[in-house]
Parts: sequence; structure tokens; C-alpha cells
Amino acid sequence: MALKIQIINGPNLNLLGKREPDIYGHITLEQIQKEVEKHSQKKNISVDFCQSNIEGEIVNKIQEIEDNAQGLIINAAAFTHTSVAILDALNTLNIPKIEIHISNIFAREEFRHKSMISKSVHGIICGFGLNSYILAVDAIENIIKNENR
Amino acid sequence: MALKIQIINGPNLNLLGKREPDIYGHITLEQIQKEVEKHSQKKNISVDFCQSNIEGEIVNKIQEIEDNAQGLIINAAAFTHTSVAILDALNTLNIPKIEIHISNIFAREEFRHKSMISKSVHGIICGFGLNSYILAVDAIENIIKNENR
Amino acid sequence: MALKIQIINGPNLNLLGKREPDIYGHITLEQIQKEVEKHSQKKNISVDFCQSNIEGEIVNKIQEIEDNAQGLIINAAAFTHTSVAILDALNTLNIPKIEIHISNIFAREEFRHKSMISKSVHGIICGFGLNSYILAVDAIENIIKNENR
Amino acid sequence: MALKIQIINGPNLNLLGKREPDIYGHITLEQIQKEVEKHSQKKNISVDFCQSNIEGEIVNKIQEIEDNAQGLIINAAAFTHTSVAILDALNTLNIPKIEIHISNIFAREEFRHKSMISKSVHGIICGFGLNSYILAVDAIENIIKNENR
Amino acid sequence: MALKIQIINGPNLNLLGKREPDIYGHITLEQIQKEVEKHSQKKNISVDFCQSNIEGEIVNKIQEIEDNAQGLIINAAAFTHTSVAILDALNTLNIPKIEIHISNIFAREEFRHKSMISKSVHGIICGFGLNSYILAVDAIENIIKNENR
Amino acid sequence: MALKIQIINGPNLNLLGKREPDIYGHITLEQIQKEVEKHSQKKNISVDFCQSNIEGEIVNKIQEIEDNAQGLIINAAAFTHTSVAILDALNTLNIPKIEIHISNIFAREEFRHKSMISKSVHGIICGFGLNSYILAVDAIENIIKNENR
Amino acid sequence: MALKIQIINGPNLNLLGKREPDIYGHITLEQIQKEVEKHSQKKNISVDFCQSNIEGEIVNKIQEIEDNAQGLIINAAAFTHTSVAILDALNTLNIPKIEIHISNIFAREEFRHKSMISKSVHGIICGFGLNSYILAVDAIENIIKNENR
Amino acid sequence: MALKIQIINGPNLNLLGKREPDIYGHITLEQIQKEVEKHSQKKNISVDFCQSNIEGEIVNKIQEIEDNAQGLIINAAAFTHTSVAILDALNTLNIPKIEIHISNIFAREEFRHKSMISKSVHGIICGFGLNSYILAVDAIENIIKNENR
Amino acid sequence: MALKIQIINGPNLNLLGKREPDIYGHITLEQIQKEVEKHSQKKNISVDFCQSNIEGEIVNKIQEIEDNAQGLIINAAAFTHTSVAILDALNTLNIPKIEIHISNIFAREEFRHKSMISKSVHGIICGFGLNSYILAVDAIENIIKNENR
Amino acid sequence: MALKIQIINGPNLNLLGKREPDIYGHITLEQIQKEVEKHSQKKNISVDFCQSNIEGEIVNKIQEIEDNAQGLIINAAAFTHTSVAILDALNTLNIPKIEIHISNIFAREEFRHKSMISKSVHGIICGFGLNSYILAVDAIENIIKNENR
Amino acid sequence: MALKIQIINGPNLNLLGKREPDIYGHITLEQIQKEVEKHSQKKNISVDFCQSNIEGEIVNKIQEIEDNAQGLIINAAAFTHTSVAILDALNTLNIPKIEIHISNIFAREEFRHKSMISKSVHGIICGFGLNSYILAVDAIENIIKNENR
Amino acid sequence: MALKIQIINGPNLNLLGKREPDIYGHITLEQIQKEVEKHSQKKNISVDFCQSNIEGEIVNKIQEIEDNAQGLIINAAAFTHTSVAILDALNTLNIPKIEIHISNIFAREEFRHKSMISKSVHGIICGFGLNSYILAVDAIENIIKNENR
Repeated sequence: MALKIQIINGPNLNLLGKREPDIYGHITLEQIQKEVEKHSQKKNISVDFCQSNIEGEIVNKIQEIEDNAQGLIINAAAFTHTSVAILDALNTLNIPKIEIHISNIFAREEFRHKSMISKSVHGIICGFGLNSYILAVDAIENIIKNENR
Repeated sequence: MALKIQIINGPNLNLLGKREPDIYGHITLEQIQKEVEKHSQKKNISVDFCQSNIEGEIVNKIQEIEDNAQGLIINAAAFTHTSVAILDALNTLNIPKIEIHISNIFAREEFRHKSMISKSVHGIICGFGLNSYILAVDAIENIIKNENR
Repeated sequence: MALKIQIINGPNLNLLGKREPDIYGHITLEQIQKEVEKHSQKKNISVDFCQSNIEGEIVNKIQEIEDNAQGLIINAAAFTHTSVAILDALNTLNIPKIEIHISNIFAREEFRHKSMISKSVHGIICGFGLNSYILAVDAIENIIKNENR
Repeated sequence: MALKIQIINGPNLNLLGKREPDIYGHITLEQIQKEVEKHSQKKNISVDFCQSNIEGEIVNKIQEIEDNAQGLIINAAAFTHTSVAILDALNTLNIPKIEIHISNIFAREEFRHKSMISKSVHGIICGFGLNSYILAVDAIENIIKNENR
Repeated sequence: MALKIQIINGPNLNLLGKREPDIYGHITLEQIQKEVEKHSQKKNISVDFCQSNIEGEIVNKIQEIEDNAQGLIINAAAFTHTSVAILDALNTLNIPKIEIHISNIFAREEFRHKSMISKSVHGIICGFGLNSYILAVDAIENIIKNENR
Repeated sequence: MALKIQIINGPNLNLLGKREPDIYGHITLEQIQKEVEKHSQKKNISVDFCQSNIEGEIVNKIQEIEDNAQGLIINAAAFTHTSVAILDALNTLNIPKIEIHISNIFAREEFRHKSMISKSVHGIICGFGLNSYILAVDAIENIIKNENR
Repeated sequence: MALKIQIINGPNLNLLGKREPDIYGHITLEQIQKEVEKHSQKKNISVDFCQSNIEGEIVNKIQEIEDNAQGLIINAAAFTHTSVAILDALNTLNIPKIEIHISNIFAREEFRHKSMISKSVHGIICGFGLNSYILAVDAIENIIKNENR
Repeated sequence: MALKIQIINGPNLNLLGKREPDIYGHITLEQIQKEVEKHSQKKNISVDFCQSNIEGEIVNKIQEIEDNAQGLIINAAAFTHTSVAILDALNTLNIPKIEIHISNIFAREEFRHKSMISKSVHGIICGFGLNSYILAVDAIENIIKNENR
Repeated sequence: MALKIQIINGPNLNLLGKREPDIYGHITLEQIQKEVEKHSQKKNISVDFCQSNIEGEIVNKIQEIEDNAQGLIINAAAFTHTSVAILDALNTLNIPKIEIHISNIFAREEFRHKSMISKSVHGIICGFGLNSYILAVDAIENIIKNENR
Repeated sequence: MALKIQIINGPNLNLLGKREPDIYGHITLEQIQKEVEKHSQKKNISVDFCQSNIEGEIVNKIQEIEDNAQGLIINAAAFTHTSVAILDALNTLNIPKIEIHISNIFAREEFRHKSMISKSVHGIICGFGLNSYILAVDAIENIIKNENR
Repeated sequence: MALKIQIINGPNLNLLGKREPDIYGHITLEQIQKEVEKHSQKKNISVDFCQSNIEGEIVNKIQEIEDNAQGLIINAAAFTHTSVAILDALNTLNIPKIEIHISNIFAREEFRHKSMISKSVHGIICGFGLNSYILAVDAIENIIKNENR
Repeated sequence: MALKIQIINGPNLNLLGKREPDIYGHITLEQIQKEVEKHSQKKNISVDFCQSNIEGEIVNKIQEIEDNAQGLIINAAAFTHTSVAILDALNTLNIPKIEIHISNIFAREEFRHKSMISKSVHGIICGFGLNSYILAVDAIENIIKNENR
């Protein structure tokens, strides 16, 4: 049976490629979605890609996952550093979870070095732009493969 | 005249009883609501019970209370530790307000020991599961009784 | 068989109702004791009520409990914020334990926001004056009832 | 061509003038809006005035500005102190931005002294009640006039 | 009767426009004085404009105000972040007081984010260059007008 | 009518003059008592002088004062830096209270720079050896004289 | 031979009795000077009383003391909390030195709890208004008497 | 002449072996006393073994030692982390002093990592259960032997 | 031309798979090396794999890279949290650099949450066991591919 | 079968007895080795005694132990306060481990109060000079004896 | 053309050699001036040497430099640790600037380890007494020589 | 007799002039060595110049000095901020010791502002590039000359 991965994007990621290209590059979130889907299809993985600027909607989305996907990739953006609610939602979820970031958050302002949600995920990938998403898909696939062994 | 109490539940409490029973027990939010209503009816108290994962909706709910209820019980869950907005909303409300928690937040991770909203409430009750709600209803009733003396 | 609850009161609580009524109200510790006994008798619960200004005597009292009571309610007052000895004594006690406070300690000076003993108790109730004791009796009764189920 | 300024108001500001007049005064947000519009019209400036209790909706609003307004005045209220998401949204916006507050936040509780968004704005005006808005309109007009010189 | 406003400028502001134009712009303190006087005259306000590099002279100046002016605008520059003496002097003064800064101090080095004197003033205006002075004159006028209503 | 002052000495002060004379001098607590009594008698003041190594006994002693003395001098010694219980006892006492120390605690280890009880007293006198007691008697007398004016 | 004591007063003390009587009382610095001189004359002590709002002038004054006085009483006011320069000047002075304050600085804002100069003085007296000066004169006299024994 | 060592045990150590055996083991304080006495007798050392839950009694006990024993072993238990009074008492004592703990306090909660009394002792031994006492007896014997050389 | 990647492993990684399998899994460093080589060969990438327990040898190794490899993958293990020397060495290196960890360091002890070297790398991958290495190889390849575009 | 204990000494301990005798005494590391060997032989224990100034060599040595010794005594000296690598090496070792220090590190500079490795050892012994080693040998022997019971 | 260097000395340096010779040595500021002038004349450098106890006068002096000297040596003494005003003045000055200290400030009290002005200077020289001045003259000469190359 | 100075260079200094010339300039360590030797020969001083990337080797080198050199110049580079081992080695060395840095470490990242070794040296020179070495040679020569006077 084919694998399904939920990919959740946090606030302001809908502006990717449109503003501040010095930090975030020129690729848009739509292009990332396409590239990730293309990459995933080859591996027979379907992806559900969403974005929200509202913390509670991201909590909602995480709550809806359990029966619908076998893995979660989350780029919580600004909420990474402030949201206990997203942490709590992730804590209730028993599937492979990966935290990703487009930029290297540890090379930016001090307040971006702390993630509220890292404790709850299997791994973190950050600093690779679009490729953070691609690598996370591979990582999820690998975790699930190992669990099924 | 009968008393009316507003009970507000914060993010992820809709999952109660469904996930992480080790921390939060097996009772669902629906069951809590029923038990609280049953307990309140005996005292001729009606309760309005709601839940939201969105901080701003909880602020909205608090704003709507003043004319509709004589007491507020709030389990702000994750927002307890981060929300100045809920604190500010509570500060505008001149009725008995009680902060409750299902688990003993002071026996959990360090960041859960700090509540942003405690300053604004009359009292805090935490660690008693469903019974935190029941005790809070009794406490509200008692505060109002004393005020009316 | 009837239930017995030990209630321990810390330093300066013997002055309740006599000084600083703005913070602590007009009710005396003797009146609290009477009200609690009256409330408990209805539930077939006997209470042993004591007070001390000496930390070590409170430790002694806690050590003597185990075979003599099925529940503990402690208002450690000033020692709440400083006593590792009381924490250690509580840690050795395997019965329901509840920390209470007459005032809302989180709405007072910063140093009163930290409790050394919260980690060791089942729940905390604070801010309800005399009613903090009454609610704690109900809470203990409820915990024991659930354990016996 | 006429200038257009977006004015965004954060959580609980819809209660202005209705509650806690000791801190925030007796003027309502509707009255502020009217006064600001009256003041702006004289200068041939149109203002778009909005309020939300939901952090993500404020992010949305900021994202929509760029082509629709030449200046932004933001009273982020409680979100001032907690929102990285609003900071990130502001960072993407290349028009004059002013942070305002009705009260002098530096004369209130310690946690209100820190603003997450100040780094991203051109200037801050706080403590002048309704007049914080009026002065901000003048300041925006002045910045734009200087840029066009 | 005409209004009189005292404007006090702290250390190194006499160099304005002469050095570090990247941070402080090209306008000199003399030009600021002229512009402020021009702006004030239209409103029938006279201004007394002074500058000192010596903390104690600024304290002296503040002490001399009470009978001589109806409002104070202070750009304490470096002393903003270190001077308890200026704070104490301001505390003794019962007229409208406004703290201003030419640059946005919250977007500069960490140690410039803390002001010792904000607690004592009615409002803060920063980040608008010369216009910080102009806006402060308007703000003082507005405060006095409201008081006289 | 003659004045009566209670003088309370904290832990280890019974060793004064017997050990560590480099820090505390060669005078014993008994000699201090005699000197203070001699000094007080001339002013028609009687003093009740006591010492305890037990925090709770000092709390007891403070509680017993109110009707028995018109002023309190307290050298809480080590408890100065740790006791909330003594602070709370002092808070209930509405007579002139003076905190004294034999040595200059601010010139010793860092942890001795913080006093838990200073907030509750009228004044502090430290660093003058025996004379700290003598000056405190004079100070109490002076406060009472002024109150009676 | 008669004793001479230098008394130095820091910034804003020249306003004593004129402003903020709630904190500092109604007595002026001139009245304090007279009372202190009257008290000292009886003991055959002459006092040199001065005040400055300029930190460096206080440093100058301290430097000039050594040959001119046998004791120093310093009320550094605001400079207490910030001045390393005054500390360094005091450190070079080998006569009895006493730090005084009119109000109880430990019962005021947090930043007033820390004194930069306490390390360098023999003792501290605070909270007694005018009497802080009187007691300090007595304390200096006592220290010198003991040294000469 | 035979050597005498005082051994002082702090709060809750009277419960050793009776509760929380996972942390403290199954041996009781009485058994420890016997083992230590047996071990000491072989070395011609007599031990005086005591325990108290009251901080002030421990201070008393330390004060009584000097003429009665040639060495001190102290397991201050909870008071280790909070008691300045015990530190001050130890500071007055000029015989070999050893701080011991049954468990490895540095592998437990953060607040147990800090000892108030370590500064005052010759050495620390912790983590060896009963054997912490035995090793301390050997260590005291060794220190005294070396001093007498 | 074929790509060459240097992979550097820090202290104790030579024990992988031999001890503490609960944290680090059962795979040995030799097996990781083989798997990485196998994965890389398919992509025509050669890898140089080394390990050292000596900080300075890792600095040496990094210094030797520049002409010998086109990418660096570093698992600095314990040195991640303490080594400024490795940070400085990395700072001198102008090729793609990736920091990896086998376990999720952010879900472990507090002191492992801080990396000294993150500032200097392009991206971080942690928590995926062997797969952290594999993903890093893919990531390096991707970075170089994009640079050559 | 005879017991073998590994004793590891950290940086600068090879200078023992040669420099800074005020802190570390006059005994050399060679003499310590001899005394420890003499003491151990009586107990049929052999000791392997080594010293290194290089952190990585100490890590190497710890890694080599497991099959070669039944106990470890480590005086990590300066590395005690900085080395995560030694902590990690100790964590992989399942034999009794004791941390020792010649001086009482808690009575020295603040930065010497924190040990990185205490969490990983069974017990700590410090402040007894040569005897810290002797006591540690006895302690290891005792731990093993108890395990074998 | 001959070089001119401004040398500025901060508070209490006029007492050099007269008081506290243990810390600052026996040489007076006048002797330092002579030695520095002698040393500089050989290199065809003229020096302007000044001292002030008033922070604002030092600011004034720095402001006057730019056209009058090609290098600045500043021993800000106590102001080193507190003065933002001197930092700001230095920031406006585009000539070689060297911060010097007579004693090694990093081996003294904690609060002397932090310099407010180091960020603004080319280099720091401290701990060499008179020679700190001599070395700084050489250093300035060297910087200018290199700039002119 | 000729003077001999040991010069020790820490990690990554062997790369000087080869990488990051913006921070460290274009001069290589070999060139620095030559310039220092040339400068020293004129003064009849021989220098032993070494570099290592291994902390323990630097400790070794410092230990070997005492009989071989009359002065030490150390540029500990990255180890400046982390090495207690080097501090301890320096503490055992009774000859003039100078800490130098090529760049002004106080104008760089926060973590470079703290030196572990400053406490142990006679003086610090930083920010002068090659000239930091030259000035240090002069400073050592001066210290020794003064000692021999």
C-alpha cells in the first residue's frame, strides 16, 4: 500500500520566493509543493501539503492526521519558537514526525535558536531550502521502512 | 435566579481520553462536560461548555461572557504558558474566574510551571482530572454566595 | 470504615483573621477548623488539624501520618517557598496529598510564585480562603473513592 | 495621488473604552477610528482600520497590504510581546511601519516592556491614548514626504 | 497665555549631522532647533532648547523647569540607559514629559533597548529623526489641551 | 509611661565574642545585652533581649510582641537571607521595626547581600558591631517620638 | 581636639521637602543641615555639609577630604546604584565612612536594592529620614572613640 | 587518648530504609549507626550519632561540639541546600568537618546540586550509602593523624 | 569529475553499536562507513571517513580538507557543545559543511541543545541514526549541484 | 580472583607537589601512586595508574577499560568542569566509577563548583589530598563486594 | 610632520601613586605624563595629557579631538564599566583609539571585567602600569605607520 | 645574560594569512615569527615560537617552560574562551605571562569576550595584529627590567 505524508507549513511561508529572497531564496511554496510531489511520486508516496498563518488551524491539522497519514513533516516557521499548543498536538501523534526549516535557524537571531517542538519529533533538518523538504520525505520513508523490518 | 457558568477549554483538550492517557486519563471532554452538567444541575447552575484550538477564539469567547454568565472556569491548556492576549481578556472581566488544569502542571516540564493568567484569576485548581472542573464549579458557587451575603 | 485526613498548617497561620485581613480575610484558624470539621463530619470523614511555626515540627508531623490518616492537606504557608525538608518528607508519603493556600500566591510577590513542594502533591488549590480547605477535603475524598473503584 | 494607510489593531482593543478605563481611557475603538479618519481626511489620506483577536488574521492582513497601502500603523496589543509570526510578516513589508501603544507599556508590568516587533518598524509611539494614532499618521506622512523628496 | 516647552538634549547630540550620518542623519542639532521653533511658533508655543554632555547639568536643568515650562521633551541619549539621577529628577516634575530618540533604539544594540527613564514619562516617541521632536511638541500640546478641558 | 523594646537575635549570635572574632569582634552577646540595657535605662526604655537558633521560635517571639512592646530590633543573622516565615511574621506587626547586623553584610559573600526581611522594616542599620544595637534603640525612640508628635 | 565630619549629598537631594513628600518627607536639606549641626555641636563635632548633582564633583569632594575631616557620611542618592567612580574614590579614603539613605531603599524598586558603594563603607544606615544623618554622626563618633581606645 | 567523632544527621534521615528504598536503599539509620560504631571501635574511635528534623537543633548540636569531639561528620540532608544557619555554625568550628550524602546528589534534581555548607568543610563524600559514613570516619582519622604528625 | 566528501566523527563515536544501544542504536561506525560508501558510490561520490577522540586532531583534519574534498559532513559529538576551536576551523573552510547527529540532541539533556558550530555550517540534520549520514551526503550533493547551475 | 582498578589523572596533575603547594600540598603524583599501590596490595587489588594532559587521551583510556578493570577512579582535574567527551566516555562504562579531587573544589573559584561528569559516577570524594585516592579504592572495593553479595 | 596623540585619564587617576599603592603602584600621574612625553619626544610625537573626574568633560574632550590629534589613548578608569556616553563619543571619532588600564582589570572584581568602550577601540592594553601608556604610544604609532603605507 | 621568551600559539593560528583575511589580516604565522625574532634580536632576546591545535600539547609546552624561558607570551586563540587546563598550567608558572590576541576579541561575538586565562596573566594586549606580539615582547622585557631593579 502506498505511503501518505502530511506536510504542514506555518505562518508567512505562503510568501516564500516573493519577499526577502536573501534569506529564503527565490522558490515559491507552490514550486516546493510541486517538487516534493514529483520526488514523492517516484517513491509511490502521496503528500498532503498545507499552509496556515493561524496557530490553532495548524493544531487542528495535526489532530486530523493520525488516521490519514503515516508521517508528518512540519515547518512551523515562527510558531517553532513560541507554540506550546503545537508541541502538545505533536505529542499526541504516534507516527514519524520531522521538523524542518528552510534556513539555518541557528545562524540567525538568538530567539530563533530555540525550538519548542524539537523535543517531540524524531529528527530535525534545517538549512537546505527546498531540499529540506525532499530530505525529510526520504527520512520519513526510511524510518517507516526500518519500523516495518 | 439560576446561576450560569462559562467553561472554556483550550487547545488539544478535545483529544482528552483519546491520546496520552498516562498523563490525562481516559475520560473524554464530552464525558467531563456531562459530569459537570450533572453536578451543576443539582445546584441549579447551568454551564456553557466550549473548546477551541485558536487563541483568538478563546479571547472572543471571554469577551462575550460578561452579560451572559456569573462565573468563568478556564482550562487554557497550552495557552496558559504563552498567552498575554487571554490574560488581557480576563483582566477586563469582573466576575469570579478560576484557572484549572487536569494534570499537576508543577510536576511536569519546567516551562509548564509558569502561568501567564494566574495573576488575573481568583483561584487555581490543578491536578484533579475531571474533578478539577467539579471543584471549580463548587468554588465559583461559594465565591458568589459570599459576595451576596 | 471512616476516612481520616491530616491537615497541616504552616507558620503564621495561627494569626489568621487577627492581622492583615486585607490579604487573608477575617476568619480565624479556629473557625476554619470548625467549618472543616463540620463539612467533613457530614461525609463521615474525621480530620486532624494542626499548626506549627517550626519547619522541623511539620516534618515530624508528616512522618507520623502514614498509618494514621488516608489523606493529607498541607498549607505550608511561608515554608512553601523555601523548604526542601518538607518536600523530602512529603516524598516519602504514599497517600493523596494536596497543597492549598488561602490567597492566590501567583498574584502576590514574585518569590511566592515558586513552590518547593508542588512536585510532590497530587493537586494544588489556592485563592479560595476557607473554601480552599473545604474543596481539598472534597478532592481527597474523590481521589480515594476513585482509587477504591 | 492620495495616500492610503493601513491601521491594524490587535487583541482586546475592540473593548477599548468599555472596560478598564483606568488604564486605557474612556474612548472606544470606533471613536478612535472616526477621529483618525477625520484627521487623515484633512491631509488627503485614507485609512483602512481593522481589528482582530486572532494572531494569524493579523498576519494575513499584513500580507495583503503591500499593494494596497503606503504605510502601516500597528497596535499589536498583547501580540506585541509574544508574536514572532507578526514580526516575520512585518519583515516582508517594505513600506513605512509604525508601532503604537495607547498606554506607556514601559510603565506597566515587566513582561510588557519587551516588544518582539520593534526591530522591524521605523519608529515607536506609545503612551498618548488616541493621540498615539494621530501622531503616527503624521509620522507616516512625514516619512513618505521625505522619501519622495 | 502662550505655552512654553523645555527641550533637553543629552550627550553627543551636539555632534548630530556632523558624524555617523548613517545612524543619525545629516541634520544638525541647530537645524533641529530651528525647525522645532518654527513649528512651535505657529502653535504659539515657545521652546527652550538646550544640550549638555554632563549628567548633573541635565539634572540641574530638569530641576529648574517646574515654574518655567508647561511641558518637557527629553532626548537623554546615552544617559537614557544608565541614569538613575535623571529618572529621580523627572520623578519630581509634575508636568507632561516625553522621552524621544532620533533613531529606533530597539533596532540597535541590546543595551540600548533598556531605558531607565521611561517609567517616569507620559509617552515615548522614537525613530523619526527630526520629526521625533516635532511629534513630541504636538503630543505635549495635546496632553495639555486635554488636561484643560 | 516607659517604652519597651523587644530585641531578637538569630542563630549563632549566642557564640558572639567566642568564635571568629575577626569578623564579629570580641564582645559577647551577654555584654551587648548589658550595654544595651545600660544605654536604654538612661532613656527610661526597658528592653527584652532574646536569642534563638530555631527559626520557628523567632516567629513565635515576633507573634507575642504586639501588646508587650512598642518597638522591635531584629538581628536575624543567617535567617535574614532565607526566612519567608520571619518576613511574614514581621508583616503582621504594626510597630516600629529595625533590622540590624553586627558586620557590614554587603561587604561579605554575595548571598549575604540579599535580605528577605528588609521590605518589612522601617530602617536598616549594619556594620557597627555593638553600636548597631545602640543606634537602633535611639532610632526606635526617635520614630515613636515623631509618631506621638 | 574637635572632630570634623564631611557630609556629602548626591543628586536631587537639594529638592528634599519640596517635592515627593510621600517618599522623602517634608523636611528640607537646609533643615537637615541645621539639625545635624545642632546635634553635632553638642558633641563638639563640626560638620561640612555639601550637595551636588554632578558625579564628578562628588568624586572631587571625596578626594579633598583626607586631611580635612576624620569621618565621612555619604548619601549618594541615585549615584548609589550606578557609580563605580564614587566607589573608587571611597576606596582611597582611610577614615570611617558611612552610607546613609533617607528612605528604606530595600522597600522600593528592585534597582534601588543594589548599592555600588556599600563594599567600601564601615556601615549602612537607611530608612530613618533626617535621623539617618543624626545616627550616622553618632556612629562615626563611636567608631573614632573605639579606634582611639 | 581515644578519638571522638560527632555524626549529625539532618531531616528525614530517620526514615532511611523505611521509605523510598529505590533512592536511599534498605538500610535503616539505626543499622548505619551500628555499622559505624563497629567500624570505629576497631580504630579506638567513639562516635556520637544524632538526628534531628529541626534546623535550629542541628545548629545547637554543632555549637556544643567543640570541646566534646575531635571531628564532625554531617549529613545535612535537605538543609544542605538551604541552611545559612548551619553554614555559620560550621564556620565557627575549628576541627575536621566532612560533608556526606548517602545518594549522589549531583545525579538528582538540579536544586540538590548546590550545597550551602561545602565551603566550610574539609572534604565531601557522597553516593556510597552506608559506606559514605564509614569512609568519612576513615577520612577524619587520617586528617587528625596528619595534623598530629 | 567525481565528488569527494570528508566525513569527520568526534569523540566516542568509535564505540557506536557497542555500548548504550538504547540511545545510539546497534549499528557500528564501521557499518555506517560501509553503508555511506555504498550509498555514495552509486552517486559517483567518494568519501573519506575518519574519527578521533582528540579535539585538536579534528581541527587538523578540517584544516587539511580544503583542496582534498568538495564537501564536509561533521558529527562532532561531545565537541559540538564545547569546541570554539572546531568552530574556528570550520569558519576558515569555504565548502558546503553539514552538522549531523545520530540522536535528536534537542530531546536529550539541556546542555546538548546548544551547538557551538551550527553558526558555521550550511545545514543541520539530526535524529536519524545512520540515515543522518546518508541524508547529509544527498544534501551536500544537492548544494554542489545548485552551485554549479 | 584479584580486583583491578584503573586510576586516571587529568591535566597538570603531573605537577603535583612541584608547584602551588599551598593548594595541592607537597606530595607528588609518583608518591601518590606508590601509596595507593601499597594500600591496594594489602587488599589484593592491583591498580593501573596513568596521567594525561590531553582530553582525547583520557577518553581513549576510559574506552580501553571495560575488559581490563573492575573499577575506575578518575581525577579529571581541569577537564572536570569542561569535558562532555569524558562524560560521554564514562556513560558507556558499566563498572563502579568514582570522581575524586585532591582539593575541595567547592571552596575554590565559582567555575570549579560545577562538574560535568558527576552525573555519570557512583560517588564523589574530594578535599582529602592523597587520601581521596585511598578512600576511593576502599569505596570501589566496597561497591563490588556489595554487588557480589 | 609630527604626530600628536591625545591621552585621556578618567576619574581618580589623579590620585595615582598617592593612595592604594598595592593595586596601582607608587608612580604618580605626573610622573607617568613625564615618562610618556620623554618616550614620545624621541619618536617625534607630541602628547596632550589630561584627566577629569567628570564623565561629561571626558565626552567634551573626545569631541574636541578630531582635528587636533591623530590618535587617542584612553584610560577611562571607573567610567570604563558604566559610560555609554563615552562609548558614543568614541564611536564618532575616526582615528586610532586604544583603551588602556594600569592594572589587569580581568583579575579584579567581576564588575570590572566588562568594558562598555572596548567595542569602539582598535585595541586594548592592560596590566602593565606606566608601561600600558608607553606601549599604547608605540601601538598608535604603528597603526598610523601601517595606514600610511 | 640574554633573555629567552616562549611564545605559544593556539588552534588555527597556523592558518593566519591564508584564510579569513578580513578578520586576521594577510600576514602568516611564519612572517609573524620572523618579525618577532628580528625585533627581539635587537634587544638580545631569543624567542621560542610554537603552535599547536591540541589543548593538551599547549599544557605540555607551558609545563616545560619554567627553567627554559624568563617570559611567556600566549595567544591561546579559541582555547582562550574554554580551557581551564591552560589556566591551571599558567597558574603554576612564576614568570611574566602576557595574553595576546591578533583581533580585538571584545568587538567580536559575545562568547569571545570572556577569557578563562586573563586571571593568571600579568597583562593583556589585543587588537594590534602582528604588533600585539611585538608589544608583548617589549612588555615582558619591561617587566623583567623592573623586577631586576
